[in-house]
Order: sequence, then structure tokens, then C-alpha cells
Amino acid sequence: MLDLPFLPFCILLGGLGFVCVIFVSAWCQHWRGGFALDGSAQMFNWHPVLMVTGMVVLYGAAALVYRLPPAWSGPKLPWKVLHGALALAAFGLAVLGLAAVFRFHNVHGTPNMYSLHSWLGLATVLLFSCQVGAAPAPHPPAPRPPRAPRPHLPSLQWLAGFSAFLLPWAPAWLRALYKPAHVFFGSTILMLSVASCVSGINEKLFFSLKNGTTEYKRLPAEAVFANLLGLLILLFGVLVLGALARPSWKRPDADSPDSCQVPAPLR
Amino acid sequence: MLDLPFLPFCILLGGLGFVCVIFVSAWCQHWRGGFALDGSAQMFNWHPVLMVTGMVVLYGAAALVYRLPPAWSGPKLPWKVLHGALALAAFGLAVLGLAAVFRFHNVHGTPNMYSLHSWLGLATVLLFSCQVGAAPAPHPPAPRPPRAPRPHLPSLQWLAGFSAFLLPWAPAWLRALYKPAHVFFGSTILMLSVASCVSGINEKLFFSLKNGTTEYKRLPAEAVFANLLGLLILLFGVLVLGALARPSWKRPDADSPDSCQVPAPLR
Repeated sequence: MLDLPFLPFCILLGGLGFVCVIFVSAWCQHWRGGFALDGSAQMFNWHPVLMVTGMVVLYGAAALVYRLPPAWSGPKLPWKVLHGALALAAFGLAVLGLAAVFRFHNVHGTPNMYSLHSWLGLATVLLFSCQVGAAPAPHPPAPRPPRAPRPHLPSLQWLAGFSAFLLPWAPAWLRALYKPAHVFFGSTILMLSVASCVSGINEKLFFSLKNGTTEYKRLPAEAVFANLLGLLILLFGVLVLGALARPSWKRPDADSPDSCQVPAPLR
Repeated sequence: MLDLPFLPFCILLGGLGFVCVIFVSAWCQHWRGGFALDGSAQMFNWHPVLMVTGMVVLYGAAALVYRLPPAWSGPKLPWKVLHGALALAAFGLAVLGLAAVFRFHNVHGTPNMYSLHSWLGLATVLLFSCQVGAAPAPHPPAPRPPRAPRPHLPSLQWLAGFSAFLLPWAPAWLRALYKPAHVFFGSTILMLSVASCVSGINEKLFFSLKNGTTEYKRLPAEAVFANLLGLLILLFGVLVLGALARPSWKRPDADSPDSCQVPAPLR
């Protein structure tokens, strides 16, 4: 399954991620009326596009940075910066994606946070915000949230900013202690993101395909297309997690003391 | 996160799995009208109970058999038999769970296999049927399907039975080649199962909670309870996958030749 060398695999995975972004954009553009910033259903459409692009594709790219063979030798700092930058970009898109759906709900008087999809999705982004905040890499604080009303978000930005400022001075033993948790939660968040996307696509199709000619259960073209999108997202997530778990693709010195920004004392 | 020793962790995980089964049964019994075998909505209720019990809880138990410290020393065969038996029990429950939903749909004239949940769920069980069929452990062929009409299933049983009879004579090099794929797909199937459960619970709540007083968006007690069930299932899946990935919990001789039923020739 994963017997390709890393670079062809990476190209294949990049192509798959690109196809996921194209598919989710095409679904929203072609069948769901396109995009806007006015609180309408067209504003909602930013939600799936930003969440898939941020929490799946960019997040997956960030997770795999240390598997790139050029990252195996030489200083680790540039790769940490790249990892942190991709993760922050993913987080920024996720925050905007949440803003889009909260704004859409608020404009239409729809309650927020009632479905299992919403509980899972917010839990995923919350977990990610802790992960971004506590990542042992020097990166700028998380971006300020946009001005749309999002009652749940300021605490996350605060946590991310606080931790990012705090941890450059954190002791080496704390970083070493934290790293396995960072790696474990890194994979966990991707799993939760993929489960959120699948439940979200399923939910959206039940909402949108209702009348006699386009009912979801009649499997119109939109349903086939969006179901395929769901399966492609799952495939992307599984391949990233498989690549992360493959021992021969891990940076050989992954657990050495130089993986810390603050060098550990020699013993 | 996973700093408990294995046995307390295992007891905690067993308790969590038990709670998942109790929760899904209580949801169907208390809010969805209980259980029956007559093709009614009460027959559908077997679907979530059997899928959660089989594809999540029993499957997770099967996956962790080789992590039990008593399995680390002595002959591997009894643990293979236990692993195979648990996996077969999980597969049997999954087949019955699919039978319940196909029968319910057929009786009510509802099309099968249109939602993303159904595509993902069937893909998961299909993948599992290959995994059960090709597992390198001596176990009996997969059980015969029950008599309810399930047009998609005979090929799976055939594949499982055929492979189970074939592989006891498969050469050692094939087993060694196949083992990493078996392990990789083992984790993948659990991820897909969990994503299927989450999307299924979300979908069922949108179907069931419709009228003015119990709408899903008003978050009645049933919605809170079933959303919590979804999160507990996710937690169970993440903990099993975390335990599987933890190097210090792996059987030390996991890759030695004695892990094959047919001993590899000495060189």
C-alpha cells in the first residue's frame, strides 16, 4: 500500500489534497450557489471549503514536513518554522471557516452547536488551538479573529497566543515531556477533522437535497459528487496517518536532544 | 495522556467500551422504541447497537490482544486464536447489523446505499471482510449470513471463507509480506468505523428529531445523549489507536519468525 518511495508518495498525496480542495470548491460553486460574505447560504459555502483546505489538506502537509528527506539532515529550525507556518495557516483557515458558519446561523436565527458534527468540529478546532498554542516551535502568536460574532473563539486565540509566548522560555525537560503528546494529538486531530468533514458533508446533503426530484435518497449527481468528496478526504487522511506511522520515513534523529529549541544539558 | 500502565488503561478502556454499548442500547430502547425483528423501525435499532458493539468495541478488543503482557511470552498461537475469534465475532455482529438496516429499508421501500454514511460504512465492512479473510491466523471460515435479504453480502462471505481456507497453506514469505498491511489496515478500519458511527448518529438524529418540540436544533435530551455517545465512541477509537501506536506496549518479538504459523526456514 505504502511501498512507494516518499517523494512519489508525496506528489501523489499533494495531488489528492489538491483534488479534495477542487472538489469541495466545485460542489459549493456548481450546486450550492457559489460564495459571498453577506451571511447568506453563499457565505455558509466558505465553511466546507475552508475546513477541508485548512483542517485536512494544509494540516496534513504540516504533519508531514519532518518526513521530507531534506529535513533529515542539518538544522531543524527551518523545518520547524515551515511546520509551524503551515499549522498556523491551517488554524487561520479553520477559524475563518467557523466564522462563516456562525455568521450564517446568526443571520438566519439558527441555533449554533447542536449537532454531533458541530460538537465534534468545535472540539477538533479547540484541541488544535491548544496544539498550535503549545507547539515547541518559535512562531508568531495566532492571528486575531475576524470581526464576525463568534462567542466561543476569543479564549482559543488567547490560549494560543499565551502559550506561544510562554513556551520559547519553557525548559528543555518540559519540551521533551510534551513532544510525544504533541505527536499523539497531532494524529488524533487529523482523525477528528476527517470524521468532522464526513459527518458535515452527510448532514449538508440531507439538508440541501429535499424536494422530489433531487432527494438525497434518489442519489442525484450532486450526491454522488459530494459522497466521492467524502471518500477522497478519508483516503487523504488515512494516507497521511499511514505515512506518519511508517518507521522508515521518520527523521532518524527525531528524539535526539537537538530537536529542542533550548538544548538539553549534556550528561 | 497514555501514561497509565497497560492493565489499568485496559480496564479503563474496557469500561469505556461497556459504556458505549450501554449508551447506544439505552438510546434505542428509551428514545427509539426498543428492538424487534419484524422489519420495523425497531428492527433498524439493531443496526447502531450491533455496529457499535462489533465494529468499534469488539474490534478494538481484538486489535489490542497482542498488547496484553501475558501475550508477550510463550506461544503466540492462543493469542492468535483469541484475536481471530474476537475479530470474527465483530465481523458477525457487523453482518447482522447490516442485515438489520437492509431489511428495514427493503420493507419500507427506502433505497439502500445512497448516503455518504452508507458508502463509508459498507466500504469499512468490505475492507474488514478482506482483513478477516486474509488474517494470518488459523480460525474457522466466516459465519453463514442470516437469511434476511442482503444483496451485497454473499461475495464478502465467499471472500472471507475462501481466503481463510487458502492462507493456512500460504508460504511464510507471503505472511511476512502481508503482516504490515494487516496492521496498517487494522488501524484504518477502526478509524473508518468510528467515522461511520459518528456520521450515522448525526444522520439518525436529523431523521428522527423533526417536529416542533423535539427538533434536533432545540437540543432535546435525546440529542445531548446521542451526541455524547458519538464523542464517547470517538474517545474509545482514539485511545485504542493511541495504545496500538505506543512502542513500549508492543510485543517485543512482534517481527520475529515465530509470529508466523508456518515457521520460516532457518538461514
